[in-house]
Amino acid sequence: MRVAVLVLLLSLVARNCDGAATDIELDAKAQYLHRLDSLNLLLYTFLLIATVLTVWTFKHRRLRFLHETGLAVIYGLIVGAIIRYGFTTSNTIQHLPVVPAAPYNQSIPPDILWFQVFENKTGGGFGNKTYAYSFRGEIYKQDSEIDKKATFDPEIFFNIILPPIIFHAGYSLKRKYFFRNLGAILMYALVGTTVSSFIIGALMYAFMQLIPHLSTSFTFLDTLYFGALISPTDPLTIISIFNDLHVDVNLYALVFGESVLNDAVAIVLSGAIQNYGERYLTPGSNKFELVAFFQAMGDFVGIFSLSLFIGATMGCITALLTKFTRVRDFPLLESALFVLMSYSTFLIAEASDLTGVVAVLFCGICQAHYTYNNLSSDSRQRTKQLFELLNFLAENFIFSYIGVSMFTFPKHHFDIGFIISGFFCALLGRAANVYPLSFLLNLGRKPKISLNFQHMLFCAGLRGAMSFALAIRNTVSEARQAMLTTTSLIVILTVIFQGGMASQFLSWFNIPVGVDEEVEVLSHNGVRSYNSMQDGSVGVGTGGKPNEKALLARIWGNFDTRYMKPLLTHSRPTLLETLPVCCTPIARLLTTTQQMTQDDMGHKIDSDSDLCLDEQEFERRRASSQPVSYHQPNLNYTVNPCYQPNGTEPTSVSAASAVPSNRDEPYVILNLNRR
Amino acid sequence: MRVAVLVLLLSLVARNCDGAATDIELDAKAQYLHRLDSLNLLLYTFLLIATVLTVWTFKHRRLRFLHETGLAVIYGLIVGAIIRYGFTTSNTIQHLPVVPAAPYNQSIPPDILWFQVFENKTGGGFGNKTYAYSFRGEIYKQDSEIDKKATFDPEIFFNIILPPIIFHAGYSLKRKYFFRNLGAILMYALVGTTVSSFIIGALMYAFMQLIPHLSTSFTFLDTLYFGALISPTDPLTIISIFNDLHVDVNLYALVFGESVLNDAVAIVLSGAIQNYGERYLTPGSNKFELVAFFQAMGDFVGIFSLSLFIGATMGCITALLTKFTRVRDFPLLESALFVLMSYSTFLIAEASDLTGVVAVLFCGICQAHYTYNNLSSDSRQRTKQLFELLNFLAENFIFSYIGVSMFTFPKHHFDIGFIISGFFCALLGRAANVYPLSFLLNLGRKPKISLNFQHMLFCAGLRGAMSFALAIRNTVSEARQAMLTTTSLIVILTVIFQGGMASQFLSWFNIPVGVDEEVEVLSHNGVRSYNSMQDGSVGVGTGGKPNEKALLARIWGNFDTRYMKPLLTHSRPTLLETLPVCCTPIARLLTTTQQMTQDDMGHKIDSDSDLCLDEQEFERRRASSQPVSYHQPNLNYTVNPCYQPNGTEPTSVSAASAVPSNRDEPYVILNLNRR
Repeated sequence: MRVAVLVLLLSLVARNCDGAATDIELDAKAQYLHRLDSLNLLLYTFLLIATVLTVWTFKHRRLRFLHETGLAVIYGLIVGAIIRYGFTTSNTIQHLPVVPAAPYNQSIPPDILWFQVFENKTGGGFGNKTYAYSFRGEIYKQDSEIDKKATFDPEIFFNIILPPIIFHAGYSLKRKYFFRNLGAILMYALVGTTVSSFIIGALMYAFMQLIPHLSTSFTFLDTLYFGALISPTDPLTIISIFNDLHVDVNLYALVFGESVLNDAVAIVLSGAIQNYGERYLTPGSNKFELVAFFQAMGDFVGIFSLSLFIGATMGCITALLTKFTRVRDFPLLESALFVLMSYSTFLIAEASDLTGVVAVLFCGICQAHYTYNNLSSDSRQRTKQLFELLNFLAENFIFSYIGVSMFTFPKHHFDIGFIISGFFCALLGRAANVYPLSFLLNLGRKPKISLNFQHMLFCAGLRGAMSFALAIRNTVSEARQAMLTTTSLIVILTVIFQGGMASQFLSWFNIPVGVDEEVEVLSHNGVRSYNSMQDGSVGVGTGGKPNEKALLARIWGNFDTRYMKPLLTHSRPTLLETLPVCCTPIARLLTTTQQMTQDDMGHKIDSDSDLCLDEQEFERRRASSQPVSYHQPNLNYTVNPCYQPNGTEPTSVSAASAVPSNRDEPYVILNLNRR
Repeated sequence: MRVAVLVLLLSLVARNCDGAATDIELDAKAQYLHRLDSLNLLLYTFLLIATVLTVWTFKHRRLRFLHETGLAVIYGLIVGAIIRYGFTTSNTIQHLPVVPAAPYNQSIPPDILWFQVFENKTGGGFGNKTYAYSFRGEIYKQDSEIDKKATFDPEIFFNIILPPIIFHAGYSLKRKYFFRNLGAILMYALVGTTVSSFIIGALMYAFMQLIPHLSTSFTFLDTLYFGALISPTDPLTIISIFNDLHVDVNLYALVFGESVLNDAVAIVLSGAIQNYGERYLTPGSNKFELVAFFQAMGDFVGIFSLSLFIGATMGCITALLTKFTRVRDFPLLESALFVLMSYSTFLIAEASDLTGVVAVLFCGICQAHYTYNNLSSDSRQRTKQLFELLNFLAENFIFSYIGVSMFTFPKHHFDIGFIISGFFCALLGRAANVYPLSFLLNLGRKPKISLNFQHMLFCAGLRGAMSFALAIRNTVSEARQAMLTTTSLIVILTVIFQGGMASQFLSWFNIPVGVDEEVEVLSHNGVRSYNSMQDGSVGVGTGGKPNEKALLARIWGNFDTRYMKPLLTHSRPTLLETLPVCCTPIARLLTTTQQMTQDDMGHKIDSDSDLCLDEQEFERRRASSQPVSYHQPNLNYTVNPCYQPNGTEPTSVSAASAVPSNRDEPYVILNLNRR
């Protein structure tokens, strides 16, 4: 019965079928393209699933000759080759050359084309139609444009893939050792990357002059750009192995700190080089070269420091928001606020023509240093786990993509001369960064960086995601395409071979592994200093052994403990104690009740609170000398049976949830319950 | 010194500056557009931050007259109005009409246009250039095309925003009460939504005939499509209030279950209606209407059940992967696998021309029902928290967008006649769903659905994200644009007013609030049945009171307990016990050692393990009768002091981590430790 009524109703629809045919064809087309997109993403999802399962097998069987990123690259290469040579899809993309309807005199192409079709009225009786087309890019060789199978817009790396990776790097930085080695890290990252870029650039340019067919296609600016993009090292593979093997913490801090910061340096440096090129080469600009050069230097310094400033400011604002509101009573809101503030940092920097990736790096460091201490334990765990997962997915995606795109990206240009020079210069550039700067650093540094450590730093110079992202960003000329190919190959080979041999390197250079985090072995002079957990001196800026800290770290540490932490977190001493008397009213305003009423225990916890990340790590290491746990620092974290979800006593709840996970805590609480 | 060398080197760059001017202008253009995009995203990020902070204030002050989604909509409206009327941006998008270079005879437009510019050689000496333009859509009125400020491609809702929302709905479904009320939920969702769609469609068509200026612009198919898109109800606002107030669990299950499933029904139904239209209206097709109609019905049933099948299958595969590998030893890998498998479900369905949103819904239900029991406690927490956060961000984004787009989306069409008819029909459609079907259900149902519950079901019929997403997906005709406007208004008003009055409704209809989850009050006949936690009968399919369970639920429950759970999880009885003797070899293969060696405690836990989500909720409710906690079911979750991070005894660790959070657990473990 109902069906009959429905049919009756549906018989009313036979109207307005003008234009339906085209609409349906358009729909089908759109659906087809959507299906292609889905298949494309599905390919990478399956690649990642395969990588995860294989990584698990490797970990399960304790094979360590190949790291997950290496696996992702290899799977990517295999799948890329299959796509390239296995399928012969019909070329379903239709191209149509068009000309302007009216004379067009501007130098740049319009954003939107309106394509007008005058259809013949005899067939379906349709009128004229206008379709909108949006700008995609310039075409250089119409014949060689093959279909873009399994490729993405390169900008997704800078806007989607890299931000969580870099933020996670900042958020999970071991700040204690990072700040302790701040001088060396800044030296390697800032000076070293710049030196390496210029040396590689100059050497490559010299090599290009020696190779006849390349001598005309590469400008010095091109090779300099290549130097900037190939200089940053990638932390992922090495750091993960260091983690497994419990390598000496100062070496860890040097390698990780440098590779995190030199990503930031490289992206700004390459941007400055490009700006220099644009400014210098603009016809009609009469600027003297030196002016342009100093402008590029100004760009570099300005963009870097402004991005840093935005990142740090947004981190501090988040800290203030979480300190002065009680949003921590609602962990979901708190986590959402944290994520949104961090993401808006990226967007603010990008919208201001600065570098979002650099901004999120420093935002991440500030979030870990200040905001983390104000968060509820639920949010601490949630944010850490969230970014850990995002980082894992993003880094494996980018390495899969490096593999796949080696075969499918249409703009590769294999030039054996450039490739060999590239490999040679990349090695030399790394050496030019590590050895001379270590020599300089050792002049003023008390625990010297030993030659073995220098060798290890040299060997830890894998190239990774940032180099690839910078190389694939711009492939307009043959020179740039050759750079992309060379960069891809360098990344693939260093990740697979240098990454796979990392534990071998460690044993060759006699680097101590399986060491307790607190045992420092930087100097190798037999004197191992041991800081117990209870010793207040392990924190940044709470005094400590002066010969182990650079002046920079000491000054910053003092300022941080006296003003920044009291302002931005619930830590003691409060601003009432550190600010001069005249500022007491302001200080009172900026000090929370929680900060004032904290008992001794809370005080102690807060003053060491920047170590809470380290302590989990510490505990994990103590728990077992066998490396079996994998990226699970948070498992035993919310051991807190006395938590009260009803929140009727907010102060006590938050005080309880502010207790960082401590290896003694479960027993403490058991004792409490027994009373 | 170094600067001088650099300048010397940089002086080598003055080469190959052909085409540089245009490149720079293009770069500047691209940068400008990127900045606009960033600003656009930043706007929504700030909107969300404002929403989060205001929601916090409301929660803090226990104001309940406005829910977070209502707030998001209101902020969106304010910002949208500011953007629309506050700024007069110069029209920076350049349009250029073009014609084909050669005659073009195909009925559909090409995918790519190659725009050839012949530049005058006198100026810069550049040659011809070709730019690629990709298809964006058809333009209907060139004059009325205003700049798309703060708008997104509607497809992002189906591909990015809705999937996590719907997956989370499936993953957090209270399965016990869902399955107990399965019959009623399916009735409301499947039959009810279809009936409501057709009634709204028919009524709207009738109204349109009465309004002169509208009678020609709406076909019956149009109004039917409107019926399908306005029928699904939105769970978010109501459910969150129900959660706060601890509304009767069966009412909760009915409202939540219906609104989750009717989203799935509506998306498939509207797709089938569209397909019907396309098939029926294709010129040259001689199909009889009835054939097309049955094809549409077949589409509906086929797409729905195939999507369901894909979702359930992928959920089961994930369960098998997590059961038979020990990937749980590495929680990060496990969580990544979980996320990737769930995402690939969406992509597989989309790539097969099915409905990804429906697939992820059933994938989510299976993941919660099976996989969740196999996960390590770290992964359980991580996945739940991740999707909770994603859901929160996605739902607030979509409601902000509904507000903003009311002013900024260029394709709104305000027609007062259609809007009033729309509101009236939406109410009537909801009534036609709830009351007749409740009457039918009560004929065969033992605990009847009382009239007050029916009123509440009627009032819980807010419209939300799915209606809006379906309405904005297609705005080619004036009819569709009027639908979008009406749908937006219905969503905004129902979310703000019906959502805001939810607690008022509850008291008007005498719905018991603040009830214990285990106290069932469905029948209101004075006989309240109380199931204690220790009673095995609360689980799905473990027997229980027959008069409280539909036949469907009983059959499924039995099958599930005997075959599905033993196969897919570590629960007892094992397949060795439930399968016939002839299948013993297969059963042995499919039974893990863990499953076999489980002690009695493990057995009990696993057979009740589908309750672990409920039990957290239960505990939370017991802990306080005051609703203050907000979406924090996981806070007291990993209370597990005996967890051993070193993993040297993997069996014991995983057995311990498989213990679901239970209100008695801390004490149990304390006792164990005392021994």
